[in-house]
Formats: sequence, C-alpha cells, structure tokens
Amino acid sequence: MPHLPEHLLTGYRNFMSGRYPAESGRYRSLALEGQAPETMIVACCDSRSAPEAIFDAGPGELFVLRNVGNLVPPYEPDGEYHSTSAALEFAVQSLKVKNIVVMGHGRCGGIRAALDTNFAPLSPGDFIGKWMSLIAPAAETVAASTMMTATERQTALERISIRYSIANLRTFPCVSILEGKGKLTLHGAWFDISTGELWVMNKETGDFERPEL
Amino acid sequence: MPHLPEHLLTGYRNFMSGRYPAESGRYRSLALEGQAPETMIVACCDSRSAPEAIFDAGPGELFVLRNVGNLVPPYEPDGEYHSTSAALEFAVQSLKVKNIVVMGHGRCGGIRAALDTNFAPLSPGDFIGKWMSLIAPAAETVAASTMMTATERQTALERISIRYSIANLRTFPCVSILEGKGKLTLHGAWFDISTGELWVMNKETGDFERPEL
Amino acid sequence: MPHLPEHLLTGYRNFMSGRYPAESGRYRSLALEGQAPETMIVACCDSRSAPEAIFDAGPGELFVLRNVGNLVPPYEPDGEYHSTSAALEFAVQSLKVKNIVVMGHGRCGGIRAALDTNFAPLSPGDFIGKWMSLIAPAAETVAASTMMTATERQTALERISIRYSIANLRTFPCVSILEGKGKLTLHGAWFDISTGELWVMNKETGDFERPEL
Amino acid sequence: MPHLPEHLLTGYRNFMSGRYPAESGRYRSLALEGQAPETMIVACCDSRSAPEAIFDAGPGELFVLRNVGNLVPPYEPDGEYHSTSAALEFAVQSLKVKNIVVMGHGRCGGIRAALDTNFAPLSPGDFIGKWMSLIAPAAETVAASTMMTATERQTALERISIRYSIANLRTFPCVSILEGKGKLTLHGAWFDISTGELWVMNKETGDFERPEL
Repeated sequence: MPHLPEHLLTGYRNFMSGRYPAESGRYRSLALEGQAPETMIVACCDSRSAPEAIFDAGPGELFVLRNVGNLVPPYEPDGEYHSTSAALEFAVQSLKVKNIVVMGHGRCGGIRAALDTNFAPLSPGDFIGKWMSLIAPAAETVAASTMMTATERQTALERISIRYSIANLRTFPCVSILEGKGKLTLHGAWFDISTGELWVMNKETGDFERPEL
Repeated sequence: MPHLPEHLLTGYRNFMSGRYPAESGRYRSLALEGQAPETMIVACCDSRSAPEAIFDAGPGELFVLRNVGNLVPPYEPDGEYHSTSAALEFAVQSLKVKNIVVMGHGRCGGIRAALDTNFAPLSPGDFIGKWMSLIAPAAETVAASTMMTATERQTALERISIRYSIANLRTFPCVSILEGKGKLTLHGAWFDISTGELWVMNKETGDFERPEL
Repeated sequence: MPHLPEHLLTGYRNFMSGRYPAESGRYRSLALEGQAPETMIVACCDSRSAPEAIFDAGPGELFVLRNVGNLVPPYEPDGEYHSTSAALEFAVQSLKVKNIVVMGHGRCGGIRAALDTNFAPLSPGDFIGKWMSLIAPAAETVAASTMMTATERQTALERISIRYSIANLRTFPCVSILEGKGKLTLHGAWFDISTGELWVMNKETGDFERPEL
Repeated sequence: MPHLPEHLLTGYRNFMSGRYPAESGRYRSLALEGQAPETMIVACCDSRSAPEAIFDAGPGELFVLRNVGNLVPPYEPDGEYHSTSAALEFAVQSLKVKNIVVMGHGRCGGIRAALDTNFAPLSPGDFIGKWMSLIAPAAETVAASTMMTATERQTALERISIRYSIANLRTFPCVSILEGKGKLTLHGAWFDISTGELWVMNKETGDFERPEL
C-alpha cells in the first residue's frame, strides 16, 4: 500500500481541488517547455520561511535551494560532492537565472546553534556543528558582544551570514563574470517570522531595510 | 536603496494583503514557541515542484531541504561540510520530526544530466556532474536500457533515485535507530508536473502508485 | 530692543493664534496648581526627536530631560554638579512621576562620536568626548564588530546605551526602592527618525520591538 | 512584551495618524542628510514649557537641551562629565548653530527650591540642592529682599538665572569667539505659563519685554 502521512494526503487533496485546477495549464506547459525561472532563492529549511508562500510564487517562478541557515560555501572545485554549488551551477549556467536572492529569517535554529558556545553535537557526525562552522569566525565575534541581547546577537549574525553567502557567491567564477556583465544580480533579504516583515539588503551599505510597498 | 526583483516585491505585496493577515497569529505563535514540524521533505530545487504548494502546507508544517535531484548522500562522518546531512541531523535530532518524505518529480533536469552520456560540465568545477555522480551506477544501467523510451528511462531513474536516497537515509545511525523504534517513518513520493498527479511509494514493493484520495 | 531669531517669533505667533487658545485653560490651571506629570522622559537634544511631538503631548504631560545621547550617569553622591541626577531626583522625589522613559533615536550624533575611533575633540575641553566616554566600554566592543555594517553598529550601540541608562537609573536608591514597591516603572524606547517608527524595549529580554498600535 | 504607559502609546498613535503623515518626507530627508538646526534652546525640564510647542517648531528646527532651571554652568575643562557643556560644544562646534536661546519660565520648581531657605534635601545625594547652588549667591540676595512678594522674588530669580546662564555661555571660548565674529547670537526668553506670554530679553539692558507680534 502506498502510504503518506495523513496531513500530506489532506494537503494534496486540497491542492488538487483548489489551486491545481486554476494552474493546470501552467503546469502542463511548464512540463512541455521546461522550467525557465528568472530567480533562484537560497533559503533555509525552516518550516516557517517557505519562499513560495512569502513571494506568493506560482509554479515555474522560483528555483529554490534550501539548506540549514541558507548558507553558500565558498567556491571549492575539489571534486567532492557539493550540493549547494551544484544547485548554483545549474541555476546560473543551465537555467540562466537573472537574480539570486539569499533569504535568511529570524529565529533561525542553525544560527542559534552557531552562536551557542555550549552547543553539543546532535549526533556523532556533528553535521550541524560542522556545517555552521562555515560562519564560525563571525559567530565568535558576535557571541562575544554580550551587551547586545540574545535576540540582537541572533539578528546580527543572521544578517552577517546573508552578506557572507553573497560574498561567497562572488567567489564562483560564473557568478562574478555574469554579475560583471550585468546579466546576474545578487540580492539579500531577511524575513521576520514574527511579524511577516521582509527586510531587503541595501547593496551599497549592506544594511537591511524595509522596502516601500 | 534596498532592491528586490519586481516580481518578488509584487508577490510579497500579495502575501501581505492576502495570505498573511489570515495567518499572522500562526506566524506569531510559531515565532514565540519555535517550529515543531512533524514532517521533513527532501525535494528538488525545481521551480515546478514546491512542496508547500503541492501539500497545501501552512507555516510551520514542513521542514524542507531542497537540492538538485532531491538526493541524500550516504552517511559520511568525515568532518567535511555536508549540507544535506546537517539538515537531516537537525530535523531528526533537534526537531524530532516523525516523517521524512523524499519527493522526486518528472522531467528533473538533474536526472536528465545524469542520464546524458554526452553531458559536458557546466563550469570548470563541474559541480552538477559530481553531485549527480552519486547515482552514476544506476544512471549507467538505466541509460543502457535502450529499448525503453527516453521518457521511460527518465522516470525510471527518478524513482530509482528516490529509493536510493531512502536507503541512504538508513545509513545514518539516528535514522535507523528511530525507525527501528517506530518513532520515524520514511516515505517516497513522485510528482508528475504535467498532470499534477502525486505517486506514492509502496513500502513493501518500492513501486510508485496513486493513492486513493 | 528685545530680540529673538525670526523663525522663533514666527513660531510663537503660530502658537498664540493656533494651539494656545485651545489650551489656555490648561496652562492657567497648570500654573495655579503646579505641574503633576505622570511621566519623565530622558531624551536626546537632537532636533529630530522631540518627545512632545512624538507622543503628541500637551502641557503638563511630560517632564523632559534632554542631553546628548539621552544618558543617565551612575549614582555618584560626590557633591559635584550633576544636572541629570538633579532632574531625576526632582522628578522622582518631588513630582513623584510614575514612569521614566529613556528614549533614544536613530542616527544619534553622540553615539556616532562614541563609535568613531578617530574622533577628534570638538574643542580643547573635549566635553562631548568625555560625556560619551560614559559608554566607552560598550562603544569599543561594538566598534570592533566589523562584520556588522556601520548602521548596524550605530543601532546596536544606541540600544545598548538605553539599557545602560536604565541600569544606571537603578543605581539611584530612590529609583530602586520605588521600583521595588511598584510605584515607579522604567521603560526604554527608540525612535527611528527615518520612518517615524517607535520601538519599545521588552523588559524581560531587553529587545526593542514595535508595539501593536 | 514591549510596554509603554498607555498615554504615550495613545499619543504616539495620534502622532502617526496626525502629524507624521504630513511630515514624513521631512523626517526622511532629515534622516538622510542629518540635522542642521539653526538654533539651540536651553530650557527647563518642566512639563509646561516645551520649546517645540511654544515655538511651533517642526522636526529639525531646534536642538534642545533641558535641565532643571535651564542653567548653564561656567566653563570647567576638568575632565569630568558635564552634560550641559557637552551639548553646548556639540551644538556650537559640530552643528554650528547660529543662535542659543536660554528660555526660563514662571513658577519654576528649581528656582523655588533655590529660594527656599528651609529647603531639605530630596534624597541623601541632594542633587537638586547642589545643582541649584550654581545660583546660590543670587538666590540668597533675592531671598533677603523681603519687601518683594514671594512671586516677585521668584520671577526676579528666574530672570537673573537666565542672565547668569548667558554670562556663563560666554565663558566658553568657542562661544565668545564665534559671538565676537558675529556668527553666533545669544538670547534670553521667559515664558509665562499662566498666560502664555513670552518675554524676551533686551540685550542692552537685560530687561525682559514683550516683543511686538
């Protein structure tokens, strides 16, 4: 017997009776012609920050990579398995997206783990510890800012890590070349789970600001 | 000036005027109490297969990892950066999800690349080539089945890769222990972009079948 | 000849023809009965953050101390001239205010001076340098957070200095005793000049949040 | 939970729905370009003498120092914390204001304390007693003028203290130099809470007179 958790089956039934009939033509043509999204989103796995919900995006609109902490590691052509680099390469070279948005969010568990100086490995492999160690230098500096509140430190590191990922995007030759030619634009955004506010990175200053809507 | 692609700003405006008001209380309590999703989804980055759309899922419902080809590599506690393993560890050990669903889909570009015996690297780093080589042995076998049509080979490898990822999930000690105790269930699903059909893996046979709705 | 800058005379004419007639009874009774404000505000001298404007306050409502950076120095009963301590003592002991609000604001020139490691004295007395040195330890820590943007560091120190001033308020015996009896409440607020937003300090966490309006 | 006294929240709501929309552009440009007020006001903390109300001043117009009794102590470059001197230095040297107005008012509690020969310290630190002792010689002389009524003595000392503060302003080298060059003008004013009248100091005689309006 095929089996899925009941909440997923219920959700799928809603999709088929609700959204799908209105979008079936779109799904069909996307199947025939292939996807051609203009925008890649690098987002977190967090269940509260789904890019398609936040950007009210339909099928075919967003190519979405999601990992813990929405991190992009630096370019490392060493022949190892790099899921993030693979998705980036596919989006830029094959789909030729015009925009890459790194979208972080408030109350990120990965960022919290990076800031937690007493963080104990979750399993013998310590995959989260190792993965978040990508931003360890920043995390140590921020963790030492003890006059900021825990929430202020968390928000600061969330935003630093977005800027860090954008900087790493530029270590990929294909990204920096296309950005130099004006064919690819990099963006940062931060979603406040608590209020639904979206804060967008100012490219000149690196600050996060609320766009006029 | 903060800047986002116009289609994202438009989408965000729709979110704030449409879906958000109805769900603001949910976002707020999720922010205060933290996320507690029951289900992790491993899905593809493809712009046509957003899990939240297909399962009509609200905020807090799905913890979603997305990479090219919805692949889970085998357990490899080697101290390297493993984004997929990190997300898995976080979902199982910290969030204590009850279900993990590997969801593939039709017309997957990653699977197509794996089947393409003339596939040329997309960039000097060849990250996609390396990433999809995780399923190279299966891909070679399927590619040799020349009496199947191209579409049949594609669908076959898409489903094989789902079963492969589920098998790899079981190489993680935490997954196999919790599955043995009945606290964690693994599922496979395959979404047909063209028709909107969801096919669910039969755990006994490995076949993909359409659930009764 | 009595002389005032023309813009003040014009403003005073507007006051007498506009607001004053509506409030003359209130002024008169406040003159007869004395002031009895419920709330003391410690605010900055900055021309963009007038508490009476921001809180739409009428005559008699707010007892307002304003200095550069809205700082409260620690209790120091050394017999020297302390204008801030004098105002505090008068508000608490004589007027018996029920609330003290320390209100900072964005883009504060005093805070900017404190963060500027190359800050040169404005005059031989270096009064600003000395005054802002009250928060020098915090300023040095924040100035070293080079992965935060200049604006992020500025906002962080603005908020730290509000918490610092509130902590110093509690070093005054009269404040801590009355707070302990529930007769006096301390608050923090931060005004965003650019957007008009008021952020209010959460007393439990020290975070600044936007109140529901 | 963020928390402010209810009357402030109500006032802030009025500000946001009333005055702010009309002035939002002004706030925004003041945030971007910085403040450039032409005039500094030294006023009292008294809740009945808000300079922005009396001079109908908008954002960016007045740099306002407020302490008890609107006093300026004499220049004392001793390396101690001087909030008044710091504000003065900032206004003159950094903002380069063109006018400084010392504005006193009727029924001032600080002046009353200075005149009260039986005044008991409000707290062990006696900060008000010490602060008002800046004008102790004048206060003693006036208190001895027993043929003047209590109200006459009070008004007399209020005006003497304005002239005293203006004289002290001239002990600051930066003030006297700029005044000598005609780049800075010093003014005195006295506000009658009871009637709303503004009395302006005649620079030649030191008298307070009502300006023609």
